[in-house]
Amino acid sequence: MTRMQQPEQVIRDIPSDISQMSRFDLIYLLEKMQQQQQELERQNQHLKNALVKIDKDLSAARDAQMSLLPKELRGVQPITFRARFFPSQYVSGDIYNIFRLDENNIGLYHIDISGHGVPAALFSVSLSQILNTNVSQKNLLKIPVQEPPYYKINPPDQVIAALNEDHYLDKLGIYFTMLYMIIDIKNNRIRYTRAGHNPPIIVRQNGHIEIPKSGGLPVGLDFPREDTVVELDMEKGDRVYLYSDGINEAVNESDEQYSTARIVNIVDKNRALPLDDVLDRLISDVKSFTGRESIEDDISLIGLSFNG
Amino acid sequence: MTRMQQPEQVIRDIPSDISQMSRFDLIYLLEKMQQQQQELERQNQHLKNALVKIDKDLSAARDAQMSLLPKELRGVQPITFRARFFPSQYVSGDIYNIFRLDENNIGLYHIDISGHGVPAALFSVSLSQILNTNVSQKNLLKIPVQEPPYYKINPPDQVIAALNEDHYLDKLGIYFTMLYMIIDIKNNRIRYTRAGHNPPIIVRQNGHIEIPKSGGLPVGLDFPREDTVVELDMEKGDRVYLYSDGINEAVNESDEQYSTARIVNIVDKNRALPLDDVLDRLISDVKSFTGRESIEDDISLIGLSFNG
Repeated sequence: MTRMQQPEQVIRDIPSDISQMSRFDLIYLLEKMQQQQQELERQNQHLKNALVKIDKDLSAARDAQMSLLPKELRGVQPITFRARFFPSQYVSGDIYNIFRLDENNIGLYHIDISGHGVPAALFSVSLSQILNTNVSQKNLLKIPVQEPPYYKINPPDQVIAALNEDHYLDKLGIYFTMLYMIIDIKNNRIRYTRAGHNPPIIVRQNGHIEIPKSGGLPVGLDFPREDTVVELDMEKGDRVYLYSDGINEAVNESDEQYSTARIVNIVDKNRALPLDDVLDRLISDVKSFTGRESIEDDISLIGLSFNG
Repeated sequence: MTRMQQPEQVIRDIPSDISQMSRFDLIYLLEKMQQQQQELERQNQHLKNALVKIDKDLSAARDAQMSLLPKELRGVQPITFRARFFPSQYVSGDIYNIFRLDENNIGLYHIDISGHGVPAALFSVSLSQILNTNVSQKNLLKIPVQEPPYYKINPPDQVIAALNEDHYLDKLGIYFTMLYMIIDIKNNRIRYTRAGHNPPIIVRQNGHIEIPKSGGLPVGLDFPREDTVVELDMEKGDRVYLYSDGINEAVNESDEQYSTARIVNIVDKNRALPLDDVLDRLISDVKSFTGRESIEDDISLIGLSFNG
């Protein structure tokens, strides 16, 4: 940023009763203020130009980041996937993806990187790169083996363990929460490991709500891990919601948190609505709770519906 | 960005000869200007606050990016590596790295991503991730094989071909120039492939300058490639310089380019100086040529010296 000269503060030299001033003083003051106003306008324009330039740059970065996020899952009949994504600044430290692992399995991750803005976003692109199944047939998610079908789907706890040992990630000094899920679409079964991330909210067709608490530390902290895999059978009409803490930790003017209880309330009472509508109602409820359009932390929200 | 109300332009209502105005008009005008000045100062503060916030965010991103770039190569006696890096904005689309491939081979890449600022930087971290030899023992640079030593060093043209076929990179719609070099430190021999990047400048100890022209298109363009590998023997005292086009295309006030000829002149006439000093002199010559401290495009500059 350019450092600019401050205009002299003339205003405080003006006596409280202007009519007491001599005509000469008035004219002198007027001329001085005129110069200062021009200087302030010049500075204002300068600052605006700087912001316009940065705005253009960061908007392009947002577009690039958005282009990496799926809004839905195409061509997989048994599951509907929908997502909402609102960066607190231009770019976000939240990322997610859903992709085919093979004929019978879908992979899904949801990640919330410590911090937000550009530093977190720099890291997010790198992380989505590591978790990309198409890069040169080498990845953490599908391990090549010698026997047919010549790959092994890496279980969720192993994926998280491998990321935790990645010294490249270490180097950037950032940690992140993550939930990695494998969806077996043949047997309607999900398996996931949760690392510091919010637990999923499972809304059963039969009216039950489940929030499995099992889970470990965020990824990238130098602690030994003891990750477990949660396995759950899904019935037709069951739904799973994943959300970053920008939602449950959103605060209103009284510094009260939105809370998981409020999320559960919305997804429960709107269970008969299409998935898209549930997500929209939740987001709009969070916004009316906080009472402002701008958000403090990155928000991402994912819904899965099992069509059986 | 927040849209702000413009203060009414009072200045143009002031007659050219202020002394002709009535006392009443003068006081009225003064009060109005006083209000406007306060409004302008408020706006100014608002704009400055916005810039301070972005500045903090982008400075953190710069630190993260800088932390990925080596300044020197440690523990490899036969080669000295030095680099200089100046992003045109906070973060850069230029990246480079130098690393051990194995006991006898050093890898080095220098990349200049299209565009600059945050969008290019987002991509750069991702790219340095792909080219990291330590990620899960899987990478483009060393291919696992069945026989001892259980890896094959991927030749420069193959590395570039693999990057060109990477559909993840495609997705972001960005292309880049690249030079990838393998340095055989046992036999003092370099092999490299150049993809749209500036050709290296080779300053021989015996006084010769070589600028091999052989090279292909940038990476990420949808054209068939016909890359070749340049092989050169290095003698004790030989030096190699790599530079991004932020240097040779830097323009002065007469819109004249700094040019490769000027780079050659500096590295040639300072050939007896330590590598660090040559790099510093080149950078300072570019700055005095353009006549300003700020730079228009990302600048990165690499020097290699063969100690034999």
